[in-house]
Amino acid sequence: MASRELDKEQNPKIPKENKLWGGRFEDSVTDAVERFSESVSFDKELYKHDIMGSRAHATMLAHQGLMTDSDRDSILHGLDEIERRIEAGNFVWRTDREDVHMNIEAALTDMIGEPAKKLHTARSRNDQVVTDLRLWCREAIDKILARIKQLQVALVSLALKNEGLIVPGYTHLQRAQPVLLQHLLLTYVEQLERDAGRLVDCKDRMNFCPLGACALAGTGLPINRFMTSDALGFTAPMRNSIDAVSDRDFVLEFLSANSITAIHLSRLGEEWVLWASEEFGFLTPSDSVSTGSSIMPQKKNPDPMELVRGKSARVVGDLVTLLVLCKGLPQAYNRDLQEDKEPLFDSVRTILGMLEVTTEFACNITFNHAKIERVLPAGHLDATTLADYLVKKGLPFRTSHEIVGRSVALCIARNCQLSDLTLDQLRSINPIFEEDVYEYLGVESSVKKFGSYGSTGSECVAEQLKFWIAKLHMNQTQE
Amino acid sequence: MASRELDKEQNPKIPKENKLWGGRFEDSVTDAVERFSESVSFDKELYKHDIMGSRAHATMLAHQGLMTDSDRDSILHGLDEIERRIEAGNFVWRTDREDVHMNIEAALTDMIGEPAKKLHTARSRNDQVVTDLRLWCREAIDKILARIKQLQVALVSLALKNEGLIVPGYTHLQRAQPVLLQHLLLTYVEQLERDAGRLVDCKDRMNFCPLGACALAGTGLPINRFMTSDALGFTAPMRNSIDAVSDRDFVLEFLSANSITAIHLSRLGEEWVLWASEEFGFLTPSDSVSTGSSIMPQKKNPDPMELVRGKSARVVGDLVTLLVLCKGLPQAYNRDLQEDKEPLFDSVRTILGMLEVTTEFACNITFNHAKIERVLPAGHLDATTLADYLVKKGLPFRTSHEIVGRSVALCIARNCQLSDLTLDQLRSINPIFEEDVYEYLGVESSVKKFGSYGSTGSECVAEQLKFWIAKLHMNQTQE
Amino acid sequence: MASRELDKEQNPKIPKENKLWGGRFEDSVTDAVERFSESVSFDKELYKHDIMGSRAHATMLAHQGLMTDSDRDSILHGLDEIERRIEAGNFVWRTDREDVHMNIEAALTDMIGEPAKKLHTARSRNDQVVTDLRLWCREAIDKILARIKQLQVALVSLALKNEGLIVPGYTHLQRAQPVLLQHLLLTYVEQLERDAGRLVDCKDRMNFCPLGACALAGTGLPINRFMTSDALGFTAPMRNSIDAVSDRDFVLEFLSANSITAIHLSRLGEEWVLWASEEFGFLTPSDSVSTGSSIMPQKKNPDPMELVRGKSARVVGDLVTLLVLCKGLPQAYNRDLQEDKEPLFDSVRTILGMLEVTTEFACNITFNHAKIERVLPAGHLDATTLADYLVKKGLPFRTSHEIVGRSVALCIARNCQLSDLTLDQLRSINPIFEEDVYEYLGVESSVKKFGSYGSTGSECVAEQLKFWIAKLHMNQTQE
Amino acid sequence: MASRELDKEQNPKIPKENKLWGGRFEDSVTDAVERFSESVSFDKELYKHDIMGSRAHATMLAHQGLMTDSDRDSILHGLDEIERRIEAGNFVWRTDREDVHMNIEAALTDMIGEPAKKLHTARSRNDQVVTDLRLWCREAIDKILARIKQLQVALVSLALKNEGLIVPGYTHLQRAQPVLLQHLLLTYVEQLERDAGRLVDCKDRMNFCPLGACALAGTGLPINRFMTSDALGFTAPMRNSIDAVSDRDFVLEFLSANSITAIHLSRLGEEWVLWASEEFGFLTPSDSVSTGSSIMPQKKNPDPMELVRGKSARVVGDLVTLLVLCKGLPQAYNRDLQEDKEPLFDSVRTILGMLEVTTEFACNITFNHAKIERVLPAGHLDATTLADYLVKKGLPFRTSHEIVGRSVALCIARNCQLSDLTLDQLRSINPIFEEDVYEYLGVESSVKKFGSYGSTGSECVAEQLKFWIAKLHMNQTQE
Repeated sequence: MASRELDKEQNPKIPKENKLWGGRFEDSVTDAVERFSESVSFDKELYKHDIMGSRAHATMLAHQGLMTDSDRDSILHGLDEIERRIEAGNFVWRTDREDVHMNIEAALTDMIGEPAKKLHTARSRNDQVVTDLRLWCREAIDKILARIKQLQVALVSLALKNEGLIVPGYTHLQRAQPVLLQHLLLTYVEQLERDAGRLVDCKDRMNFCPLGACALAGTGLPINRFMTSDALGFTAPMRNSIDAVSDRDFVLEFLSANSITAIHLSRLGEEWVLWASEEFGFLTPSDSVSTGSSIMPQKKNPDPMELVRGKSARVVGDLVTLLVLCKGLPQAYNRDLQEDKEPLFDSVRTILGMLEVTTEFACNITFNHAKIERVLPAGHLDATTLADYLVKKGLPFRTSHEIVGRSVALCIARNCQLSDLTLDQLRSINPIFEEDVYEYLGVESSVKKFGSYGSTGSECVAEQLKFWIAKLHMNQTQE
Repeated sequence: MASRELDKEQNPKIPKENKLWGGRFEDSVTDAVERFSESVSFDKELYKHDIMGSRAHATMLAHQGLMTDSDRDSILHGLDEIERRIEAGNFVWRTDREDVHMNIEAALTDMIGEPAKKLHTARSRNDQVVTDLRLWCREAIDKILARIKQLQVALVSLALKNEGLIVPGYTHLQRAQPVLLQHLLLTYVEQLERDAGRLVDCKDRMNFCPLGACALAGTGLPINRFMTSDALGFTAPMRNSIDAVSDRDFVLEFLSANSITAIHLSRLGEEWVLWASEEFGFLTPSDSVSTGSSIMPQKKNPDPMELVRGKSARVVGDLVTLLVLCKGLPQAYNRDLQEDKEPLFDSVRTILGMLEVTTEFACNITFNHAKIERVLPAGHLDATTLADYLVKKGLPFRTSHEIVGRSVALCIARNCQLSDLTLDQLRSINPIFEEDVYEYLGVESSVKKFGSYGSTGSECVAEQLKFWIAKLHMNQTQE
Repeated sequence: MASRELDKEQNPKIPKENKLWGGRFEDSVTDAVERFSESVSFDKELYKHDIMGSRAHATMLAHQGLMTDSDRDSILHGLDEIERRIEAGNFVWRTDREDVHMNIEAALTDMIGEPAKKLHTARSRNDQVVTDLRLWCREAIDKILARIKQLQVALVSLALKNEGLIVPGYTHLQRAQPVLLQHLLLTYVEQLERDAGRLVDCKDRMNFCPLGACALAGTGLPINRFMTSDALGFTAPMRNSIDAVSDRDFVLEFLSANSITAIHLSRLGEEWVLWASEEFGFLTPSDSVSTGSSIMPQKKNPDPMELVRGKSARVVGDLVTLLVLCKGLPQAYNRDLQEDKEPLFDSVRTILGMLEVTTEFACNITFNHAKIERVLPAGHLDATTLADYLVKKGLPFRTSHEIVGRSVALCIARNCQLSDLTLDQLRSINPIFEEDVYEYLGVESSVKKFGSYGSTGSECVAEQLKFWIAKLHMNQTQE
Repeated sequence: MASRELDKEQNPKIPKENKLWGGRFEDSVTDAVERFSESVSFDKELYKHDIMGSRAHATMLAHQGLMTDSDRDSILHGLDEIERRIEAGNFVWRTDREDVHMNIEAALTDMIGEPAKKLHTARSRNDQVVTDLRLWCREAIDKILARIKQLQVALVSLALKNEGLIVPGYTHLQRAQPVLLQHLLLTYVEQLERDAGRLVDCKDRMNFCPLGACALAGTGLPINRFMTSDALGFTAPMRNSIDAVSDRDFVLEFLSANSITAIHLSRLGEEWVLWASEEFGFLTPSDSVSTGSSIMPQKKNPDPMELVRGKSARVVGDLVTLLVLCKGLPQAYNRDLQEDKEPLFDSVRTILGMLEVTTEFACNITFNHAKIERVLPAGHLDATTLADYLVKKGLPFRTSHEIVGRSVALCIARNCQLSDLTLDQLRSINPIFEEDVYEYLGVESSVKKFGSYGSTGSECVAEQLKFWIAKLHMNQTQE
């Protein structure tokens, strides 16, 4: 709500001015409509990209003879000055000027007069806003990619710090098999790599220039769309002007990619919240990433990861908003599309925060080796290794599985571990067991036996770590 | 983003203070975590309800002998002063004080010293925040209810202004039957009435007091929960302390109700956007509720209704955020729940705006009687009335339907209306037609024939209008 | 996909027949369109309510003189026969007859001939389908209400079986305070009670009769809508015919209510999955509600509760489908609305299954008292009780909180419990401690001290249990 | 619901057998749990890919010496026979065998005995199901890509059939500028091309092989994951076994891509529903793709496109289901993930249907040239071209815009078109107008003036058409 309190309200004496589109209009809109319709309170976020676009546009117009070089220079200087003012916090954003585009253009007109009126030649807010938005998204993706890499580096570093630590691997939140913590941490590194891949694809697909599509049909003026496209770093101008102004699939794709990343992080959040509980007790966050209770002084809460888990919800909500928004809209631009910005900005801001805080958390947790080692034997984590043993002895898997099942039942009855069973006890279940079975029992032996590609076997994991260190260009200090 | 720029950032010299829960903590949290975790930038919206709750709590504590009357009086005066400062814009909100609760309590401590430390007796932020939230929701529902009623009044007034106007009724966006515009407008009045009913039910169900549930288990101190519940206008204290602090179903229900209202408004938005098009041309918004184009000077866009349609998306997105947020959280309070507020506030702010602007739009449109009357004959809207005629003559409905189908086919072939067919032509299809058939043909005759309860027949509609005028307590001026 | 394999495909020799609406149509629709458009594969679920509606309609038509008594009797007998055939599995559903309505009407015509053609008098599929749907929803709500009550009874029974068991209460998944298991179980009973309340409100609001609204405008034939409304058990006929055929807010409200229930159950699912883990080890499901692993023989997975948690997602997805579906549709009936049924049916089927299986799970788990008692001392659960002690001694809460914080820090340093600290150690922190402090320490003492209304104190909980036993009409056997 | 009626119910006499994982279990699960947990009613859809995976796995096991060649041959023959039976409809699917994997393996055991028990060596249902799912998705994407191309071809063909037709271009559903219908149709072709691109990226990213990850940790048996990966056409085996079994991001990405496609189609649906209305009257669907009304014989509804619009909702709902499902799940496999299949299958089935039916619709509509030409002059579509004229004369754009605004106002006052204004009238607004202005007025002149790249100018569009004909490999017959 605070964000809606703009300068206009703060400077109530500024008289409402005529809208730039006001030619045939006799009444100005009501206050409620103005408040409901304005977008400058949030789309000012686009100021830098709007100015960037206007610079490229003015330069092209002059090059094509659609304005003089001197007009262009006035415009470029004016835009520089406006950018400076905005960044210094000295620019007065006015709600009655509706949006970022009109605010900047009107301020330019106030500043340089007549030449400013030529800037909107062969341009409409329809192509202008979507150009700004694509530039903004491109930059946002780069920021997220950098944060993803930081988190990957933090996870790999965490793995390196905890070499050799075996933890329970879970399915159904039941202990299943022993795995190296390093192997588990690399799971998230893999998932983040795909998250990054999705963003790169999204950026490539969106990096085409809508500028020059004008309102929806293009223009009869002799503009050069390839020139503005190049100047703004786009791959090429978009091929169809209606498509250019009316589609927001690039935002949908971006928010989808963010949602998937957010879901990945929510899973890591859940895992670390679990592990920080008294019951698991596998990790302890440092004071710098945990908080206390206003009433229970003994508490040390892993809040940042709870919030990471929780904030995934708003990233999903933002995507849903965009999907609902676009559903059933006919071509071309509809005012509904103004609502694309806040969910986009929120999604990006949230995902950036989630990645940053997860990285900080990863840098500030300690795994409790002693506790983990103490509780590790519980849960018969070596059972599948035992089944592998029987398969190696020549039994069909299903038979092995059943024998191991009975062995585990015996352990439960006797309240012991598989490795505690005597050879006689094992043979009472099936005579195939021999002395060498003990090489397969116990959690450490079990982990040693894994050898398949991608498995949790020590050598496999070491190789994967090497792969990631190289891929992430990690050097000694980062490790 | 702007909304996150709080006083702390603006006053960077304020040193970070120890958190109120900091007893056993050695390090303060990192800046990124603080920024990510703080909620004061948005939950300060709850200040009034937080103070309200603290007043009731302090009064109860004193009454129960848990603080002195003089402590209570210091607290009450301090809270008054804080409220004044906040409302005057003179209160410094600090991010390092995390949330609205800590900001107010710490400011109270700064102001009145020792007695302030007793305010949090038998209270936790867990029960405090949910008390605030229920109070806030209760008030928000009342505001929405008032806006719903205003829109209903505006729609009924619009109906009264357009007595007798017949418009096409659509199914599949194909013209189906003629209906009175009044009848169509009352459709929305009916839907809004159910929307209001949902909110009232929601308010009744949420109006129970969680205060005194403390962290999650209640307290051993001799508090009186019925006293605070009464003081705050709740029906009764909640029966289960864990339930009290951990559930947010009242927010889910509220956001669901808002979503349904938003969907209703999106449909009205779509309808009026259609009707304002050149192709329909059934209504014209006044200049005060429409906008122009920056490049196409002839345009007059029904933007407010496009935005109403579009903003329905964020109301749905807000609901989805809350659902995803709450999914799979174990009892009791989890930090994830902090994320309940922004979607809630956004949903309420948006729905209030949608209702207000739709009301203004309804007050500022003109139905183009002449245009509607001119195009009304197209589409064979009297076909079902003709089928009723045949049923009255004794034909089974399915047979009648088929005969009318053939009559329409004849009209299409001859490019004429049903009422243009001669009796001979009709009889060539089926000999049952007689002269009296012409009483059933033509749009006006057709509407006159409707008589079933709830139908578009003039008398039925007049009765319904009377019902709504009474129900909405509309007087002469409102009409 | 299987569900789409209907009899038509199985009996490819049945020739396509003319559609009942085919009067002016020359070509029949393509196969792809027919396959895409048909709804009988899923809306046959409505057969009973469709027949119910037709009975009431025919009876009313005869009473109003719109068909003869003998026609009515033929129809009623025919409908009886069709119902019998459907229930015996002998009814041939045909895709080329599109939907349940046309299938039944056409079968009726095949069976009784001419009189069947009169059944659709003063009725359209638009009002017919929404009448069926409201009847179906009404019945579905009653089924869900019964299942909710069963689950409440199961939870109360489980509480009664575990009297006196103290478990850790969590916030942030960190141990916070000791609570009675009974108190925790009643949390879910409370939440389910509000879930039930929402459904009852929804049923009351939807229980109005749309029949007689016909296509959208009502009819000119002398029908009696009050008569059909009464016959079908509706409160009254709907007041506005356009509203009657075009709105699906009752489905939205129903699916919202289901979503909230589903979220509640997902939280219980999460909690019990956690508690069944090796790390918590608080509960063990019986073999009859758990499953094993195809490769890890030692596993015993609480699958039903994982699925309950997971299936909450589809209930939410179904709601979102309906919201997206209805967004932006103009009045009145649009074919899009055909898509309302599958999400509705899926939501109801899923929620019924979730409730049933949670009930079975609740009836088949054992809480591991010994394990819980063993681990309960960990986590300083008595810390807040200690703070209450200090408040009772006259210290301000904030001061007490800080002292307790330091006491806990001392325990952590010494790896002991609060009750293990000597009086001297406590006094070294603050001289206010006296011998009576030990009455407040230890988990059991701590629980005994709670006494506020709704708290976890034994007497408070006992009273709540009594309340629920009475409210749920539980008798000895159920307990 | 029908889809849940499996053979077990139909053959109630089949006794329940022991689960393959039943080693240590004493009781079998309750009926309700079995019904709730089974997945074979829907995952049998995966049979082909399950068999494909088993073939590759058995071949690899034999190659690695983990089974004999003769065992392998028995297995391969058995799988062939099972596949034949399934495709002939002679396979008995049993709910008590839970899922497609257990059904096939158990049937194989029934058929070939002992060797079948070796098939599950070094495999778990966890890696098996996700292998099946990736194979299924890969194939599904290929099917969707084919359908997308068909629709693109249909749209280009439709464009070729309607050369030269000018239609109003809309913004805010207000007429804005004249565009060639061809240009508008290519908008959708462009959007579909990005939809296809997303699917291709998704397929590339998912085409890695999880087989051999076993339960979650890999295996100690000497398998060769590269061999199975190659045999199944995957790019490579996945690098991390936990990632392999626990992530479903490839499904999320696929459903996101489908949702975006669905949103695009919903917009086309909306547009064509609008255009088929009496009010627009721009297109007429043939009888083969439209339906009639059961009560209004004159109706001809564009149902397929309404359903396309409506069914977009379930594609979005399916995505939301998956997002909610995956949120907050810790590693590795959780039973919740079983719920990934139905939304996936539904999304794919729905999008295939939407594409097919839209293609059929596109092949069966006629644009009403005469009607369009008649109404085209309304709306001052040449206003922006006039503004371009003034810019070319040297006026700043903002000044031009204002002059055109006043010209339009004059037209509205005089109820005429811009081209109807005399030069004197124009000059009374601004003296800059000269005789050559008339080359810019009128819709046809206006379209001719467009020349910017990607604009609606005839040559630009012709070039784009050529581009698409080549890209889509369209030959004479298709055009």
